[in-house]
Amino acid sequence: MGLSQLSSSFFFGASTPNFKRFKHIGLIKTSSKSDLITDSAAGATAFSAGIKTYNRAIGIDMDTLAVKLIPEVIDSNISSGVISTSSITHATPASFYAHVKTRKLEEDIATFLPKSPIDFFAGGGKKFFFKRKDNANLSKDFQNANFVIDTISLKKPSVSEFNLSSKFGFLLADNAMPKASEGRGDFLPSATQIGLDYLSQNKRGFFLMVEGSQIDWGGHSNDSDYIVQEVLDFDMAIGKALDFAEKDGNTLVVVTADHETGGYTLASNDGDYNKIKGSFSTSGHSATLIPVLSYGPGSEDFIGFYENNDIFHKIMKVTNWASSL
Amino acid sequence: MGLSQLSSSFFFGASTPNFKRFKHIGLIKTSSKSDLITDSAAGATAFSAGIKTYNRAIGIDMDTLAVKLIPEVIDSNISSGVISTSSITHATPASFYAHVKTRKLEEDIATFLPKSPIDFFAGGGKKFFFKRKDNANLSKDFQNANFVIDTISLKKPSVSEFNLSSKFGFLLADNAMPKASEGRGDFLPSATQIGLDYLSQNKRGFFLMVEGSQIDWGGHSNDSDYIVQEVLDFDMAIGKALDFAEKDGNTLVVVTADHETGGYTLASNDGDYNKIKGSFSTSGHSATLIPVLSYGPGSEDFIGFYENNDIFHKIMKVTNWASSL
Repeated sequence: MGLSQLSSSFFFGASTPNFKRFKHIGLIKTSSKSDLITDSAAGATAFSAGIKTYNRAIGIDMDTLAVKLIPEVIDSNISSGVISTSSITHATPASFYAHVKTRKLEEDIATFLPKSPIDFFAGGGKKFFFKRKDNANLSKDFQNANFVIDTISLKKPSVSEFNLSSKFGFLLADNAMPKASEGRGDFLPSATQIGLDYLSQNKRGFFLMVEGSQIDWGGHSNDSDYIVQEVLDFDMAIGKALDFAEKDGNTLVVVTADHETGGYTLASNDGDYNKIKGSFSTSGHSATLIPVLSYGPGSEDFIGFYENNDIFHKIMKVTNWASSL
Repeated sequence: MGLSQLSSSFFFGASTPNFKRFKHIGLIKTSSKSDLITDSAAGATAFSAGIKTYNRAIGIDMDTLAVKLIPEVIDSNISSGVISTSSITHATPASFYAHVKTRKLEEDIATFLPKSPIDFFAGGGKKFFFKRKDNANLSKDFQNANFVIDTISLKKPSVSEFNLSSKFGFLLADNAMPKASEGRGDFLPSATQIGLDYLSQNKRGFFLMVEGSQIDWGGHSNDSDYIVQEVLDFDMAIGKALDFAEKDGNTLVVVTADHETGGYTLASNDGDYNKIKGSFSTSGHSATLIPVLSYGPGSEDFIGFYENNDIFHKIMKVTNWASSL
């Protein structure tokens, strides 16, 4: 999600975007250790572990050694969650619980989830857990980890069940979730709300990563309508996070992206400066700096220009979660 | 200068860009009153007068009525300057001293400069003053306004001459200045330094507008090398302003742009993520939000999301120059 993707919400949204509620803005350079233009694996590992690594690496360094990820770094008394509109085993969410040499190993990635410190997750990717090519079934692993898994629908469990004595996971599509425009409904904002309701029961604190995964896919497809719908959906999820943080008063919200995709441009329609036509100049990623929006205590630490992996270190500094590092 | 133009300095510069010295970052929506995608005339008038007007309007509102521009608003005891690598009568610099219905009237625009409150200027555009289609010659107008005009070279006058009892103007090309890569040399950073040396003699304060005009032209030409050279040149001028402001301690520096041009993208070279190839998706302007970088006292007022014309109001608030409004 580059600046033009973000900007599209100011032109195509029905109301003022939640993006506008942020005051503190930073800009990050997202190059990985191996490439000037990062992929999502190295990009997410920079956020989750504070290191630059090679494109395709999930939770490992240049020497393929596992590095500690935020949910692993933070005190075991603090809860963690991941939410995405991709498979939950896709590069970005995977980089918050798995350690594999290449992002393509989604069945391997899946095996990390039940044994990870993740307490709550929601997304697609059912087949990587329950219809695997190696015929394994990870139901038992989830049970052993005290996970309640719902593969049917996103609904908040009844109050009596929905407490920290169980972990909760929603796997609602075989692979990726549907597009926002093709039946995903309000999955992302609702899952964000449910995640916040669950995790915030832990009065010692929590970490939640929410990805609007398909903004990137709209860029790869050079499909402006796809991008706009996904950005507006992500903006609604951001609204849930900001509403929570405003009420709570002690929560930091950081919105950023691993990279821009598509060279997306809010161009004119054949020179008519009163009609905006989404245009593209690549089907891949680009190297442009990426905005970081932040809200809440410590958000003033996220201004200025810095490297993508500094996000991790800034979060650690603000939360003081790094005591165990 | 959109975010990708700015970002190019992080990949193609020989040293760390001066852009990186800024901590306070804002994002502006640049739509004009007439068009979702602004041109430079409406864009610059938003900055210079605090209003949204129609594309092509220079220093006038939707009713074609003149509006007060920063050099006109500020107390007559405060000095003003404009510097550009275009003709000094081009849309952006013109919007800080002229009031005309359309930017194309460059001879009309020129007549405003000698009688304006501008004390220092440097750029191209000689022909609009001295080789006019209407055969007028504005030498006398400059003399009457106590202007010393140099049409040969950019050099700081001797200390004994270079004081506020005269005004100074440099007109160093018939129309636009040459490209940075085609013989312009260090005109922009040097003119910025000379402008600061001159204007800062006024201990009551000064306003200086410096434009890296040809970043936009590189976008219109879809010429990445042109953009990169012009951005790096502009970054050197920014360095002069920041060095001055750091030493002075009481100067606000605001860096922004009227709009992005070209849908410029730091894309891969045919999928090689280790080679960056500047790519484009339009030959015109785009509507993407534009970064605002600020440094110095009051710079914290320039963070967050806002409209382009708020830049004017924020400058007025910080400087307290608006007392005469």
